[in-house]
Formats: sequence, structure tokens, C-alpha cells
Amino acid sequence: MPIREIAVGRPEETYHPDALRAALAEFISTLIFVFAGEGSGMAFNFLTDNGSTTPAGLVAAALAHAFGLFVGVSVSANISGGHVNPAVTFGAFVGGNISLLRGILYWIAQLLGSTVACLLLKVATGGGTTSAFSLSSGVSVWNAFVLEIVMTFGLVYTVYATAVDPRSKGNVGIIAPIAIGFIVGANILAGGAFDGASMNPAVSFGPALVSWNWKNHWVYWAGPLIGGGIAGVVYELVFISHGPHEPLASSEF
Amino acid sequence: MPIREIAVGRPEETYHPDALRAALAEFISTLIFVFAGEGSGMAFNFLTDNGSTTPAGLVAAALAHAFGLFVGVSVSANISGGHVNPAVTFGAFVGGNISLLRGILYWIAQLLGSTVACLLLKVATGGGTTSAFSLSSGVSVWNAFVLEIVMTFGLVYTVYATAVDPRSKGNVGIIAPIAIGFIVGANILAGGAFDGASMNPAVSFGPALVSWNWKNHWVYWAGPLIGGGIAGVVYELVFISHGPHEPLASSEF
Amino acid sequence: MPIREIAVGRPEETYHPDALRAALAEFISTLIFVFAGEGSGMAFNFLTDNGSTTPAGLVAAALAHAFGLFVGVSVSANISGGHVNPAVTFGAFVGGNISLLRGILYWIAQLLGSTVACLLLKVATGGGTTSAFSLSSGVSVWNAFVLEIVMTFGLVYTVYATAVDPRSKGNVGIIAPIAIGFIVGANILAGGAFDGASMNPAVSFGPALVSWNWKNHWVYWAGPLIGGGIAGVVYELVFISHGPHEPLASSEF
Amino acid sequence: MPIREIAVGRPEETYHPDALRAALAEFISTLIFVFAGEGSGMAFNFLTDNGSTTPAGLVAAALAHAFGLFVGVSVSANISGGHVNPAVTFGAFVGGNISLLRGILYWIAQLLGSTVACLLLKVATGGGTTSAFSLSSGVSVWNAFVLEIVMTFGLVYTVYATAVDPRSKGNVGIIAPIAIGFIVGANILAGGAFDGASMNPAVSFGPALVSWNWKNHWVYWAGPLIGGGIAGVVYELVFISHGPHEPLASSEF
Repeated sequence: MPIREIAVGRPEETYHPDALRAALAEFISTLIFVFAGEGSGMAFNFLTDNGSTTPAGLVAAALAHAFGLFVGVSVSANISGGHVNPAVTFGAFVGGNISLLRGILYWIAQLLGSTVACLLLKVATGGGTTSAFSLSSGVSVWNAFVLEIVMTFGLVYTVYATAVDPRSKGNVGIIAPIAIGFIVGANILAGGAFDGASMNPAVSFGPALVSWNWKNHWVYWAGPLIGGGIAGVVYELVFISHGPHEPLASSEF
Repeated sequence: MPIREIAVGRPEETYHPDALRAALAEFISTLIFVFAGEGSGMAFNFLTDNGSTTPAGLVAAALAHAFGLFVGVSVSANISGGHVNPAVTFGAFVGGNISLLRGILYWIAQLLGSTVACLLLKVATGGGTTSAFSLSSGVSVWNAFVLEIVMTFGLVYTVYATAVDPRSKGNVGIIAPIAIGFIVGANILAGGAFDGASMNPAVSFGPALVSWNWKNHWVYWAGPLIGGGIAGVVYELVFISHGPHEPLASSEF
Repeated sequence: MPIREIAVGRPEETYHPDALRAALAEFISTLIFVFAGEGSGMAFNFLTDNGSTTPAGLVAAALAHAFGLFVGVSVSANISGGHVNPAVTFGAFVGGNISLLRGILYWIAQLLGSTVACLLLKVATGGGTTSAFSLSSGVSVWNAFVLEIVMTFGLVYTVYATAVDPRSKGNVGIIAPIAIGFIVGANILAGGAFDGASMNPAVSFGPALVSWNWKNHWVYWAGPLIGGGIAGVVYELVFISHGPHEPLASSEF
Repeated sequence: MPIREIAVGRPEETYHPDALRAALAEFISTLIFVFAGEGSGMAFNFLTDNGSTTPAGLVAAALAHAFGLFVGVSVSANISGGHVNPAVTFGAFVGGNISLLRGILYWIAQLLGSTVACLLLKVATGGGTTSAFSLSSGVSVWNAFVLEIVMTFGLVYTVYATAVDPRSKGNVGIIAPIAIGFIVGANILAGGAFDGASMNPAVSFGPALVSWNWKNHWVYWAGPLIGGGIAGVVYELVFISHGPHEPLASSEF
């Protein structure tokens, strides 16, 4: 199967993409998303004097990430495809929907965006701590590993079903960013209490770098990449390649 | 009235459906939905040390189910019609919108998806309890029976009005998943305090099986199936068969 | 200006409406909406042992009403125009967008729907109290009068701008129910703490009737009808009759 | 580059705008938005007896502003372009998308709308205090300055990407108001704990005027205008002027 360039968002807009401009869009989207998401965690710590998570705090985190990611995807959908997540980019890659080079460019932009967001949060809060993702007491790293795999599978499966699948075309610009934001919000309400529910290596990388705390950091890369990769392969094989409607088939030979 | 194959979602995509692929889509959608929904309840128990439900906990549960179901419906709408609920499948069946065989296949997929979600939650939380749905103190099983009937009537009526009704066609891909997710969220904010507000036998089945707690389990089947069945018959008879616009009429003879 | 039949929703669907079927749709939509909305208040009372309102309780009420009204409007938009509120019907009437007779029919259906919802809630909660709307301590009836006028002005102005205004046509089926649900949710987060934030005589009528508590009930009729009436007149005169685009003008002579 | 008149919303509707009618739409939209937003803060103070902000209070504020702004933008999008914010108007001006005169008219309308909303809130709550935006203890005015710049950059960048960018055209009426409402909600969940998270000089002006409290008021003008201005220039230069698709190019010579 030949590489189809980019799929999330509006493919017709991105056949001849200016890769650097797309990377800038990924950088700004990730910055906006992480600023709101990580910032909501810092707000909770500020308001509760570093108290332990409560259901209301979990709701705040879920809404900040759901709303912020909806925005991050919406504002870059027409320019870069709206990945805003290295696991989504990886899932697009293993499904043959983005080239290796462009994928690497996206990763750099996403990691930079998250880092700059954390630095700005540090300045804007007078030196507040950008807490790294961590495991709650009683949660093992293997629990978190499974959690991140399952949750990111759901996220990247959602990306494929609402943005990559040719059948989603008509509503892609509307349903995709809502669904992508909401699956992250829903999963945070479940997994956030146990391991922070990252589903996104960029989201974990910025806080880890700026607070220089790398404890168990690998799990926030391995889990999302494996879960996202499986979703990409499964969706592409089962629902796109052998689907009843294959508008792309003829152009692939 | 002859059977019209599948109606929820985009009918034109599903005239010649690959039933197994559709069942797989139902399985994955239910897994994603139950993982977030049941997971949010486990998160509340984890954060509050099995405390009793609070308004903030109810908000968390409502958002997890609303967001999760929106996603579950969106990602399977184009493949299986986005039922994600045996009561919806049953409501579609009594209204003549899905065949018996396909309906049974969907039920199996939905129950399996919920069960696997609960098993994964058990692994991901280090053996946490996937609490079965139960009646709050002071709520009788007949109260819950009425509650589940009314709430599921609202849910399946919503499915019919926004996805099956030919008049909803233009916006079906967008309005249907939002409305279906939101009616479940709204009803949880009302009924969740009294009986957990399932409206979905699959949602109750997985936790009951994995925690092996079948107390009053029948009410979470009988209520939703009766409420959903009534909604299907009422909507089909009153608003579709005798509606002012009957684009399907000519093809029915 | 001649009467234009119904405007909220899709006018083209309702030129020859079956009025009774439309009234039934209003009845069911109001039932679904009030069941979730009033039910969320009963859930709060149940969970907190009739405690006084908290910010989390206000969030729960706002989401239950926002989600429930979105659904109520969506499911009846194509059949009755999706009023679900006597103040909206009145606002449509004063702007010349619904006939007197049909308006009266809608009012009866809406009041019945709310009443049946409250009776069902009573049964489903084992005789719980369907608390009537009331003024918080320190809030005078004239404060509430102003509050209901301003909030309902906002609601009916939103109905006109997103569903009646011909310029809104393209997105009416999507934007209108979201905006109508969200303005009620937003206003509850402001006014809910002071007078319950009804904006809808049907929403106040059912609980008052079933709990037989009519104290200050008039303010929940007078406020919404005045606010909704002003919105209808203002929008029709300023933004529709003299608007730059008047696609209806030619057909009016 | 010649001035292109108005861009947010549906440009085709506003080539020959009645500027006063557009200003009235901005006035009413800002009134509706500030009534819900500032009102939610007054509700929190009322319910908690002026307690300090909690995570649940932050969620209430975020939802009131997100829902209220979604509505404010939706109801004026077809008439004035749905700015509802002097920083958005300024960002549109520096990007060449609104004339100076019309921009000044919008500013006056927005500031008036916020002021009238606060006066109405005072009447409706029996003389309650419309608290001005202020810095939390430990937050310097320069922290707030950075915070407002970054958050308003995100907001105006979102306006450009979802409403001004010609590529967003197809979904502009739906995605733009959701994204604009959600970015404000997300940012309040982060910045609200530190400086109130205004991102909008009109939102800060009304409460400051009515409560006559101007302490640090400048930061709620300088931050948003700088952040919004940068977003307008960056987006126009990088993503519109040099974008791969320039449907406006031919008409600019």
C-alpha cells in the first residue's frame, strides 16, 4: 500500500503541504492545549494548596483537556491535519497516512509546543511547579502501562473513525474535533485518578522536562505509542482496506 | 411493513453490510464507552475511598458517560449504525429497522465489549472492583423499574428522532451522537443518584459479570428493553408511518 | 405582516402541519427535559439530605438542563419546531411566527408534559418531593422578576437568532439546539442560586402543581413571558424586518 | 493589502452592513455573555458567603463563560461577525479584517453591553457586588500580564483559524462559536485561579465600572490587546497571506 499523505482533517487541502507551516500549526496547537490542560492542574494545586485529587478536580481536568484539545485540533485541522499528539502522528504513520519525515517534524513541533507552554505557565504563575505525570499510590507502572495502551487505543481509533475513514468525510470538520476532545475528557474521568491519563507523549514530556522529573516517564511514551499503533493498524486493516466503500482504491494503483 | 435494514447512522452506507465487521465496531464502541463510564465510577471510589455519591461525583459520571457515548456512537455510526446499547438495538428491531439475526449479533458484541472493558479496568487498576449497578438506600426495585423505563424511553426516542426519522437526515451525522450522548448525561444527573441510571443492559452486564453480583440485575434489562421498545413502536407509528413526509413509502410496496 | 406559520426548526417541514402530532412532540420533549432537569434537583436533595445549594449542585443543575433542553429541542425540531417552553411559543407568537390556536395547543402540551414528568419522578423516587421553584433567602420577588425577564430575553433572542432568522438557515438544525441548551445552562449558573432560573413557565408549573406550592408562582410566568415577548418583538423589528437579506419579503405580498 | 471588511462569521452577509444594527448585535451579545459569566461569579459568592475559589467554582465559571460566549458568538455571527470582545475586534483590525470606524463602534457597544449587564445583575440580586477582576494572593501584575497575553493569543488565534481563514469556510458557522467558547472555558480552568482569566477588556470593564474598582485594571486591557494583536498579525502573515490556498488573492489586485 503506497503512502497516502496526511489524512486527519481535510486531505484535499494538504496534498502539497508546506511542511514547516504545518509544523508551526502543530507547535501552536500543542502549546494552546497543554497551556490549558497542565494549567488546570496547576490551578487545582494552587487552589487546594497541593491537596490530593478530588472528583471536582478531575472534572476540571477533564473539561480543560476536552475543551483545549477540541480547540487544538480545530485550529490546525486545515493546516496540519490536527494531530496535536505524537501518538496520533505515530498511529497515522503505521496506517500509512503520513510520511516518516513529516512525522518526525510533527513530533519535534509537538514536544516543543508542550515545553514552551510549561515555560510560559512557570512565568505566568510566578514560578509555579509544572508537575510531571505520576502514578497514584497503589498503582503500579504496569497498571499504568495497560491503562495508557487502552485509553490511547480509544483515542487513535476515534481519530481514524472520524477523520481518516473516507466514510466520515461529510462531517469530518465538525465531528472529528468534538469526538477527539471528548474521548480524552472521558478517559481522564476514568484514568486520571490512577496515572493522570496522558494518552499523549507530548503532554507528559513538557512538564517532565521543565520540572526535571523523569520517574516512570517511559510509560507515557510506550503506552500511547503501542495503543495508538495498534489502533492505526486495526482500523486501517479491518475498516478501511476491506470496507464496503473504497474511494481511494482506484487511485492506489 | 417490510424490514428496513439498519437505520441509525447513514443507511445508504449499510445496505450490504458486512455483519461481522459491524459487530466488531459495536464491540469496540461499547468497550470504549464502558471503559470510560465504569472507569469514572471506579475513579470516584478510588479518590473518595468508596465514599457515597456526591453531586460532584454525579457530574463526573454524567460527563464520562455523555462524552464516552458520543464517541462510541460517532465512531461506529458509519459502520454499524452506532447502537452501543442492546436497548437501542431492541428498539430498532421492534420498529422494524434491524433484522433479528443482526440484532442478536449486535447484542453479543455489546455484552462482550462491556465485559472486556471491565476486565481491562480490573487489570489497569491493579484489581479494583468493577462495582455492579445497584439501588440506593430507600429506592425499591419498582422505583428503579419505572426509572429505567422512563429514561430509556427518552434515550431510544432520541435515537429515533435524530437518526432513524428521515426528516433528520441532513444533520444526522452530527446531531444524533450529540443528542444520544447528552440524553444519557442528563438522565444520569437525575436518576444516577437513585439506581445508577444504566439505560443500557450491556453497561450493567459487564460489571455484574466481572464482580459476580447479580442482585436486582433483571431490572437493568427489563426496564431498558420495555422503555426502548415502547419508544420504538410509538415513534415509528406516530411520527414516521403517518408523518407528512414519507420518502420511504414508495419503496415499501 | 401576515402570519408565517412556525419558524423554529425547519419551516419547510411544517407548512401543513398536523397540529396534534406537533403537540404530542412538544409534550414528549417537555417531559424528557423536565424529567432530567427537575430530577437533577431531586437527586441533589437526595444526595445531600436536602442541603442548601452548592457550586457543584449548580453545575449539576446547569448541565442537566443544558443537555436535556438540547435533546428536547433536537427531537422535536423537525415536527413541532422545538419550542419546549411556553415563553418561546409566546415569543414566536408576538413576532408573528405562530398562530394563536397552535400556540394554545403547544402551551397545553408543554404544561402537561411537565406535570407528567413530575408525577413519574414521584413514582420513580418512591414519593420524593418535586420541589417548586422558590426564591433564595435575601432575594425579593422583584429581583426574581427582573432576573427572569433578562434571562428569558436572552433565551428567546437566541431562539430567534439561531432558528427564526432566515440568515441562520444553513446551520439551524445544529447550532439552534446547542445554543438554546447552552444559554439555559449558562443562565442557571448565574441565576440558579437566586431564584432557580426557570426561564420557562412549564418548567415551574409541573413541580408547583404536583407539590401544590404556588408561592410567588406568578413571577415564573410574568418574567419569562415579558422577557420572551420583548425578545420576539425586538428581533423581528430590528434584525428581520429591516435586515439586509429578506428572502421572505417577496412571498409576503 | 486592502482592507477586507469583517471576516468573522459569514463575510458574504456583511459586505453592505448596517453598522448600527451590527453594533446593537454586539451590545446584546456582550450583555448576554457578561450577564451569565459575571453572574456565575456572583452566584458563587452568594452560595459560599464570599468564600475563596474552589475547583467546583472554577468549573462553574468555566462553563458559564464557555456556554455564554458560544451563545454570544452564535447569535451575532450573521449580523456583526460575532466579536463580543474588544481584543477580537482589535485582532481583526490589525489583520486588516475590519475598518477603524467600525471597530470603534464595536468597542463602544461591547463596553456598554458589559456595563448594562452588570447594572442588571445589581438590580436582579438586590444590590449584589459585581466584583472586579483581581489578582489572587501571590500573583504579581506581571504574571497576570503574561497570562492574559498567552490566553488571549490562543483565543484570537482560534478566531482566525476557525472563522477568518478561508479554509474554515464550510464549517465556520458551527465550529467557530464552539471553539471560541471552549478556548475561553479551557483557559479559565487554567488561569481563572490566578487572575480571573478575562481575555476580554469588556468583560473586565463593566464590573470595574459598576463596582468602581480600577486596581490593576490596565492589565486586563494591555494583556488581551497585545495577545490578540500578535495572534492577528501572525495568523494573517503566516497562514493566510502565504497559505497554499489563497481564494482571496485574485480579488486583491
